[in-house]
Amino acid sequence: MERLPGFRDFYPEPIPHTDVWSADARQFIFEKWRTVARRYNFREYDGPPLEPLELFTTKSGDEIVAQLYNFTDKGERAIALRPEMTPTLARMIAAHERNYKKPVKWFAIPQLFRYERQQKGRLREHFQFNADIIGETDPAADAELIALLIDTLRGFGLTAQDFVIRLSSRNAWHDFYQSRKPKTENGNEYKFFQVIDKLERAEPEESEKKLSALGFSLAEVNQFIEAGKPTAELESILQNLAARGLREFAKVDYKVVRGLAYYTGVVFEAFDAKGEFRAIAGGGRYDNLVKLISGGKVELPALGFGMGDVVLLELLKARKLLPPFDSRTDVFVMIEDESFRPQSLQLIQDLRTAGYAVEFALTPAKVDKQFKRAQELKAAFTARVENDAYVRIRNLKTRAEVVAGFADTKNHLR
Amino acid sequence: MERLPGFRDFYPEPIPHTDVWSADARQFIFEKWRTVARRYNFREYDGPPLEPLELFTTKSGDEIVAQLYNFTDKGERAIALRPEMTPTLARMIAAHERNYKKPVKWFAIPQLFRYERQQKGRLREHFQFNADIIGETDPAADAELIALLIDTLRGFGLTAQDFVIRLSSRNAWHDFYQSRKPKTENGNEYKFFQVIDKLERAEPEESEKKLSALGFSLAEVNQFIEAGKPTAELESILQNLAARGLREFAKVDYKVVRGLAYYTGVVFEAFDAKGEFRAIAGGGRYDNLVKLISGGKVELPALGFGMGDVVLLELLKARKLLPPFDSRTDVFVMIEDESFRPQSLQLIQDLRTAGYAVEFALTPAKVDKQFKRAQELKAAFTARVENDAYVRIRNLKTRAEVVAGFADTKNHLR
Repeated sequence: MERLPGFRDFYPEPIPHTDVWSADARQFIFEKWRTVARRYNFREYDGPPLEPLELFTTKSGDEIVAQLYNFTDKGERAIALRPEMTPTLARMIAAHERNYKKPVKWFAIPQLFRYERQQKGRLREHFQFNADIIGETDPAADAELIALLIDTLRGFGLTAQDFVIRLSSRNAWHDFYQSRKPKTENGNEYKFFQVIDKLERAEPEESEKKLSALGFSLAEVNQFIEAGKPTAELESILQNLAARGLREFAKVDYKVVRGLAYYTGVVFEAFDAKGEFRAIAGGGRYDNLVKLISGGKVELPALGFGMGDVVLLELLKARKLLPPFDSRTDVFVMIEDESFRPQSLQLIQDLRTAGYAVEFALTPAKVDKQFKRAQELKAAFTARVENDAYVRIRNLKTRAEVVAGFADTKNHLR
Repeated sequence: MERLPGFRDFYPEPIPHTDVWSADARQFIFEKWRTVARRYNFREYDGPPLEPLELFTTKSGDEIVAQLYNFTDKGERAIALRPEMTPTLARMIAAHERNYKKPVKWFAIPQLFRYERQQKGRLREHFQFNADIIGETDPAADAELIALLIDTLRGFGLTAQDFVIRLSSRNAWHDFYQSRKPKTENGNEYKFFQVIDKLERAEPEESEKKLSALGFSLAEVNQFIEAGKPTAELESILQNLAARGLREFAKVDYKVVRGLAYYTGVVFEAFDAKGEFRAIAGGGRYDNLVKLISGGKVELPALGFGMGDVVLLELLKARKLLPPFDSRTDVFVMIEDESFRPQSLQLIQDLRTAGYAVEFALTPAKVDKQFKRAQELKAAFTARVENDAYVRIRNLKTRAEVVAGFADTKNHLR
């Protein structure tokens, strides 16, 4: 029986010559995300992987449904597997916002789903690191969030040679649009943003055509991008990053505008410096979303970013920044003489209670087979009960051996 | 907008006077599960939360569908949100078993789903710690697995006064059944197991009636349970546990037989000793399942257990074994003089890079307000830039203060 197309199994260790995903690599990434978020005093939350479909259509309009993994449940409810975390966050904040001092700094590591037309190798799920700051309008919050993004990537060993944050502003484009829009303009600003968003991927002729339909020329748009003059808001963020010593990781790039409708101010994306991969992360301000999701009850400015596990993993692999995911066996207890199995079990229990990862042969096996297994597991030590009182400990790296009293074994495992 | 009935939001900290779940408590439980599993040299895996419906009906028959969270996807596939992990594990093992030395010792922490008729407060999802050993028939594997279960519960601070493992055997009941079954018997053994499984919850008259329909009396069944004579297999497990010093945690109890059809040998459940809660964990042998799921291609004996997060959390709460889930702020950097904000940002960055969890006021705020926030966050230290060269560090517990050079700050934070 096969798993569903677009979904991943995560095996304990990468299997040579297969495209199998590694649970250890996933856990390595999750732990790093968590560690850096906690240093920034972000706190963890999570919501259900399933939400009412309405939560997502309220936010993004009915067009979003075409990309959703949605269905009708047994209670005739319209349901969707969450395609993003922000609507859930806005719902949760709106429900209990009075219990939290502002600004709220929260993170989550949700699994997200989509159901687009299937393309070869295209995944229908991924995991995403989400970090958000809620309740602060000042660009200092944007700087704090971008600094977290930078330090998360640095946490994996990536440097300014490996990635760059492209920083932009919907406000800058809004001002551009408003100052030049044709007098007949009638709610086309978001359409304009969408053309800008596709500028890098689309043919110039196509962009020119679409812009001209909206009353703009590609030349004036490109000129604005090339000038790249930071707004006061962006300038403030860049100065804040400079004070942190992080200025070199960010550059103003108005080609970034982000596809989603709900962004309101500063937007940004993280890219690998060589331009080989899709965006590593993206985010921005969404000051109106909490109000929208709460039906007008709660009004709070907000901003956040998401970083997926798939592109990140590809990048870390390419830059050789993934550690080996071997078994972390500390001690392999060898049972040479079966009459010592009870004492060996006692030793195993003692060592595990003391925090060591211990393996042994569950059933009688030849000594050389046991030793081979210890080596396969890259165990740091073997330990063998010699008699009722003593244990022989061998360091598999240095090959040093020592015989210790039973209770003293732990002191020789370093 | 409300979340779906039966699903949980996980907030960063428990909110007083609400039934809100805590993401920190969840993470505390997950980390403990992971830590103990690794000591036993179990390795982590995971599969998709969605699987083809067939994976579960193959294993459990079509009746299971009534309890499943199943639906039809946009590609007209019959899909289910996983109600348990074992079929996914069997599928994964069958697909790549040649790459792994036996016995395989794997664990996972999946979120599981069900869709039963709704009852008040009844959850439709929970998280479950799953540990399995695959490829070993010897009772030594059962003992290793049960030892892991015991040590996992002990890892939370629970003792032999708090919980007990009730150990039983389908083989013992099989022998009982076969030796006394009426000559007309025709595949009623599983029906018999189901009556035994409900013995504790059902009225004696009801059990008597059902047993008698199968050709047995309640008296002979009760006699067998009260005698509680361990089989050779159970005896071997108990001796193995005794060698580990874990004998006191287990007792033979034939009232346990487990409801699921696929168990084949030893079965067990963990209960709180006072009998206040539902089972904390349950498991057993399922030697035929890998063969069934792989369509006969792979034949491997197997055993495992599952431990849910909900009952465990209730029990830990009742026994006061949950730590406080306060913010883990190490240092609150006070910005008294706004002209020192750039230096303060540099200090914050230095401390975070050194691994400290650091918080500060993103925007100008009165000093007493900043200090109050530091206290709310239970920060261990405050740090304040005094001038271009020095930082004043205050230990909020001892109230000791020290002025240190900028780069020397880290050395005063312990």
